[in-house]
Amino acid sequence: MKAEIIAVGSELLTPYRLDTNSLYLTDELNKLGIRLVHKAVVGDLRDEMRSSFRHAMNRSELIISCGGLGPTDDDRTRETVAELLGRELHRNEEILRSIQERFRKFARTMPEINVRQAMVPEGAVILPNPRGTAPGLWIEAEGHIIILLPGPPAEMKAIFEADVRSRLARMGDSERLFSRDLRVTGLPESEVEQRVRPLYELYPDTETTILATPTGTQLHPRIWSRNAAEAEKILDEMVSRMQLALGEHLYSTQGETLEDVVARALTENRATIAVAESCTGGMLAERLTNVPGSSSYFLGGVVCYSNELKSSLVGVPADIIDSKGAVSSETALALAEGIRKRTGATLGIGITGIAGPGGGTPEKPVGLVHIGISDERSTRERATRFPGDRERIRFQATQQALDTVRRYFFFSAHGRT
Amino acid sequence: MKAEIIAVGSELLTPYRLDTNSLYLTDELNKLGIRLVHKAVVGDLRDEMRSSFRHAMNRSELIISCGGLGPTDDDRTRETVAELLGRELHRNEEILRSIQERFRKFARTMPEINVRQAMVPEGAVILPNPRGTAPGLWIEAEGHIIILLPGPPAEMKAIFEADVRSRLARMGDSERLFSRDLRVTGLPESEVEQRVRPLYELYPDTETTILATPTGTQLHPRIWSRNAAEAEKILDEMVSRMQLALGEHLYSTQGETLEDVVARALTENRATIAVAESCTGGMLAERLTNVPGSSSYFLGGVVCYSNELKSSLVGVPADIIDSKGAVSSETALALAEGIRKRTGATLGIGITGIAGPGGGTPEKPVGLVHIGISDERSTRERATRFPGDRERIRFQATQQALDTVRRYFFFSAHGRT
Repeated sequence: MKAEIIAVGSELLTPYRLDTNSLYLTDELNKLGIRLVHKAVVGDLRDEMRSSFRHAMNRSELIISCGGLGPTDDDRTRETVAELLGRELHRNEEILRSIQERFRKFARTMPEINVRQAMVPEGAVILPNPRGTAPGLWIEAEGHIIILLPGPPAEMKAIFEADVRSRLARMGDSERLFSRDLRVTGLPESEVEQRVRPLYELYPDTETTILATPTGTQLHPRIWSRNAAEAEKILDEMVSRMQLALGEHLYSTQGETLEDVVARALTENRATIAVAESCTGGMLAERLTNVPGSSSYFLGGVVCYSNELKSSLVGVPADIIDSKGAVSSETALALAEGIRKRTGATLGIGITGIAGPGGGTPEKPVGLVHIGISDERSTRERATRFPGDRERIRFQATQQALDTVRRYFFFSAHGRT
Repeated sequence: MKAEIIAVGSELLTPYRLDTNSLYLTDELNKLGIRLVHKAVVGDLRDEMRSSFRHAMNRSELIISCGGLGPTDDDRTRETVAELLGRELHRNEEILRSIQERFRKFARTMPEINVRQAMVPEGAVILPNPRGTAPGLWIEAEGHIIILLPGPPAEMKAIFEADVRSRLARMGDSERLFSRDLRVTGLPESEVEQRVRPLYELYPDTETTILATPTGTQLHPRIWSRNAAEAEKILDEMVSRMQLALGEHLYSTQGETLEDVVARALTENRATIAVAESCTGGMLAERLTNVPGSSSYFLGGVVCYSNELKSSLVGVPADIIDSKGAVSSETALALAEGIRKRTGATLGIGITGIAGPGGGTPEKPVGLVHIGISDERSTRERATRFPGDRERIRFQATQQALDTVRRYFFFSAHGRT
């Protein structure tokens, strides 16, 4: 079955808003074996809405719209679709009562305009809305299914989950989509693509989306199949080969974040961590503590912008800062070791660098970041120059710091350290 | 002039990617007085692409597509549009040479498939691509302008800026869009709407989009006009009235972030700041240092998850933690005062709370956060219970902490403190 999504609402045609409902709907439709072939965003002008629905009906069997079911004059999806299909609208007393009931619950009287939300095209199935006043509508016409859902995501999802999913499941193809979610860090997207591309020919029925995100590269191999066991087997095999191709750069085959993977490594190894950050300004601590339960391994951190605090709070010797500079290998090493000793953590991380836009010199350019890692036995450090603006440099520095922790345990586990 | 945007690419029909190019293009088109009436996302199937372009030509004079100009078989925008318009494709030797040149620059030989990117429909104007191999194409046909741009945002924008904007400016309507960007914090969206709604009737030619974002509520009043002075006057007047309606909750009339506003207040008052965070785990320090030049007012911070670090790094008396608990007004006050004294900052901020999902009790539920602010004269504190999950609780807590700093200076300036 082919499907289209039409997002209705003039605010979605401004530079401020994107239709995000369609991501949820696409995922749900795919799981039901329904392919999305087209998405549209249309304002609340009747002519343009009618044209969008008509064109969609020319292409696809299933059309889902979101939005335009509100009580005001701008909300015209119901009327436009009824007119397009030549169906009359009738007032449904049961819907009306439930809308009135909802207003009563919040100690308000229903404004007269809300009566419009109780209008139903002939022959439509009503999909109750547990989260708002506008019910969804399921209309079968001329071999098509047209589903009208409200725009607010919570209402749209509630109706989809309560009614739409099970109704579609009964009529969906037996073919379904199976997929995996692989996460890679430390390799550019083009390098990832080059390493996995030879696999595409070996698995011609699969399709792989490669997605460069700020948190690294994601690989989504996908396969449509009627046979779940076979599809899973093909994906398992393909993922094993991707693992070989990507080596230690692959940090998850299950869509985990780097924070989650680091959290697991720390927990499994009964290790604790503390951080001393300069240029990343607390972002590394923030990411480490973004994981529920992080208090079991994260002891604390210091954000030391000024040289005085580097010495007073973390114990970096003032003569190191004086002779080598605040941005130097030596300071990064002293930060990592200092915070480990002050807090008694298993691992200490020190970050110092130049996030810009000011402060760069030819020897120490904007983007240069030193990351130190210290354990009981030794303290090591690495300097990297990150591209981009302040925000990107800071993010990449924390990404590399997290990856340093991940690789610390990865190589320990693999006996290479 | 009415315009449509067509985003081409099967990856945009997966649950993983959204077309974001259209936000940039909408903004640029609006500034040129061109209204967007429709957006579509279509895969790389020829039939569906053809249908999208044909329908767009029925509705609008200007059609801009992004994507599908790459060198592989999946990239079919050029061919599909040429076929739809009945134009032949010819190889353009100049484009071919520039593509070959680009490959040479990166010490590579041009693969044979890239020749496709040098194919040009008859009569098309070539829009050189300074950032990649696929040039844009400007085609005038049957009273329409069809502009084909590559999908990668950097390439799309570079071509738009170099050529498309000036070409469109010459033919755009004299009517243009004027807008403002107001930012509010500390009021729910519905309350913001209620306060400004009476203004809509006073300014019937304006349209206001209200946008609830994680960083607060945004108001975008907009007006289409042929008279710049008149439009700006109406908006200025409307914004003044909005200012009155929103009071101290309005933190910017120029689309600034709360971080920027706080940075300006600190700088203008020659004040410095230091923070001690527990449940927000470094997020407040991260947000304060996200502003270029923040080292002039941000001295440093401590992320103290463990009680030991609250005492050893910030000087919170152990008996306060023992008797009142780590999450308490007293601890928040001691954190704020302690970090101010340890760092010598003008202002100290202390945050302690329960971000969840675990750790809540009936007396101290998940979401409870104490925020303290300390200056030379006094230390105050406020407890709030934030709704939502861990991520949202932490973000709202930092938002309120930033807002506490903003209001500290706001009320000082207004003589109320």
